[in-house]
This record gives sequence, C-alpha cells and structure tokens, in this order.
Amino acid sequence: MPKVSQHHLEARRRQILDGARGCFAEFGYDGATVRRLEQAIGLSRGAIFHHFRDKDTLFFELAHEDAERMADVASREGLVQVMRDMLAAPDQFDWLATRLEIARKLRHDPAFNKEWTKRSEELTAATIDRLRRQKQAGRVRDDIPSDVLQCYLDLVLDGLVAKVASGEDTQLLTAVLDLVEGSVRQR
Amino acid sequence: MPKVSQHHLEARRRQILDGARGCFAEFGYDGATVRRLEQAIGLSRGAIFHHFRDKDTLFFELAHEDAERMADVASREGLVQVMRDMLAAPDQFDWLATRLEIARKLRHDPAFNKEWTKRSEELTAATIDRLRRQKQAGRVRDDIPSDVLQCYLDLVLDGLVAKVASGEDTQLLTAVLDLVEGSVRQR
Repeated sequence: MPKVSQHHLEARRRQILDGARGCFAEFGYDGATVRRLEQAIGLSRGAIFHHFRDKDTLFFELAHEDAERMADVASREGLVQVMRDMLAAPDQFDWLATRLEIARKLRHDPAFNKEWTKRSEELTAATIDRLRRQKQAGRVRDDIPSDVLQCYLDLVLDGLVAKVASGEDTQLLTAVLDLVEGSVRQR
Repeated sequence: MPKVSQHHLEARRRQILDGARGCFAEFGYDGATVRRLEQAIGLSRGAIFHHFRDKDTLFFELAHEDAERMADVASREGLVQVMRDMLAAPDQFDWLATRLEIARKLRHDPAFNKEWTKRSEELTAATIDRLRRQKQAGRVRDDIPSDVLQCYLDLVLDGLVAKVASGEDTQLLTAVLDLVEGSVRQR
C-alpha cells in the first residue's frame, strides 16, 4: 500500500469540509444527518469520521475556519467590516444561519457550549484588541467598557445573520450598519 | 349532544395554545412533531387540528399573541422596553429561540414568510408609530429615517434572543441595551 502523502491528506480534509459546509447550509444543523453528509461529501461515513471524530467536530472545524477569517478582518478593520463583508456575500447566509439554529443546544449542552466558545475566542479577542487600539487612537468612544462594546457588536452580528437569513432588504441593513458604526464612534 | 359553549371553546383553544407553546419551547420548531404536540397538549391530532388547521397555523397564532403583547409595550414604552422585559423573563427564551430556527424557512418558503410578516406587522407599526412620536417630542434622533431605526431595533431584538438563548450573561446584556437606547436617543 502506498504511503498517503501529506498533500493527499490535506485534499481529503478539504473535500470533507467543503461538502459538509454545503450540507449544513442546505439542511441546517439538525437536518445535516450522517447520510446527507455522506451524499454531499461523496465519501462513506467511515472515511469521513476517520478524519473528523463526529458531526460536531466537523461543525466546530467549520466554525473555527469562519472565526479565523473573521478575526483577521476584525483585527485590521473591525467587526462592523466583517458584517459589511457578510452583507456583500449573501450566498454565505444559509451556512451562517446554522449559528442561530444551535442557540438552544448552546444553552442546554454544556460540553457543546464549551467547544463552541473555544472556537469563537479568537474572534472575541481580535475584536476587543482592536476596540482598545481604536479607543487609544480616539476613534472609539471611551465611556463604554470594551466587553460591553464587544458584546454589542457580537449581538448585532447575530441579529444581522437572522435578518439576512430571513430575507431582509440589503440596502436597509447597510443603513443599519452605518448607524451601528456611528454608535460606537467617539463623538 | 349538548351544544358546545363559547366558554368551552375558548378553554379548549387556550389548552391547545399553551401546550403547543411549551412543546415548541422544549423541542424547537422542527422538533415539535405532531406526536409531541399531542403529548404536550393532551389531545389527539384530530381534536387539535379541528381548532387550528395545521402545525404552522398553531405556530403563527402563538407568534401573533407575542406580537400583540409586544406591540402594546412598544407603543407605550418602546421596543427597548420590550427587550428589557425579555431579559427579566429568561424562561421565555426557549420559546423565543424558535424565532431564530425559522430564519431558513422564512427565506425559502414564500407562503410561510408572508404569513409570518403578517403576524409581525402590528409590532412593526407600533414601533414605527412610537418612534415618530418620540422624534416629534425631540427624544429620538431625527437624522435617521424611521424605517432604519425600526430595522435596527428589530435586528437587535433578534440578536438579543440569540444571545440569551445561548446563555449570555444578563448583566452584560443590560449594559448593551443601555448602549442601544443611547444610540437612538436625540443627542
């Protein structure tokens, strides 16, 4: 048997993650059954779960990819820019809607909550770090603690996902983001 | 056969709605199957759907009850007060989390979306009407169109539901609502 190359391993992981993302986007968190994941990915459950322990591990890995990308933008341009990017790519929203579908699970399943929080830590840290820098530069209001500002922006992000996922008008949402940006700016 | 009294009819409808609300809260929108609705309500599907055509009709009636109650508070005290009331009754949030679970359905099922929008119209109208009155009284900023302010507050409401449903700290969220209130206030 030939030795599996690193390159092949990476490609296989990519195939699984991309297929899984599409499957979650189409059927939602609960609807993405193992059978549907097999179909979307084009591999057997044995092959899939050889690379990722279970469905939740797959889901967390996708959330982690999102968090990394969003943290990168948040660190350079802030969380409002992350949201503007979201608005510009509404095809991503079926996947993002799964963020809302797991709210109940986050509340009732402590182990799931812990793993999810770990995946979001990077984005939270990047946002708070940028808020601190912007405060020092006099661009973000300094009368509100950073954790409150961060929670506010993260709440707006969840609300934005809900609004776009349910088909709200993009132009109206852009005006809302302008308001949000203004509300954290130093007056 | 004795004639069914109006009082009996009302009591039966109430029994069905209360049971259904608990069932949606516990199992989510998709998880509230007809079998579980029967168990939670304590009536057969025949009896239930004699009063409400189907599961969606039940769900919309519950949403309509919410919208009426929220519109009443929004009209007198504003949508931020509706959110403060929500924060004070976190046991309601398992039910409210169903609002998030239907986002995908709202986007992909036009008939469902139309019915849902109809149920929310009352709350939207009450919010916009109060914003206009507050603008005239100089208490709400007049540099932002009312539909943008209304969309903003409604987005924050969805975000708040997501945050509480996933177990976010109530004190932090109270501080966030103070920030939200300040951001629509006339400076």
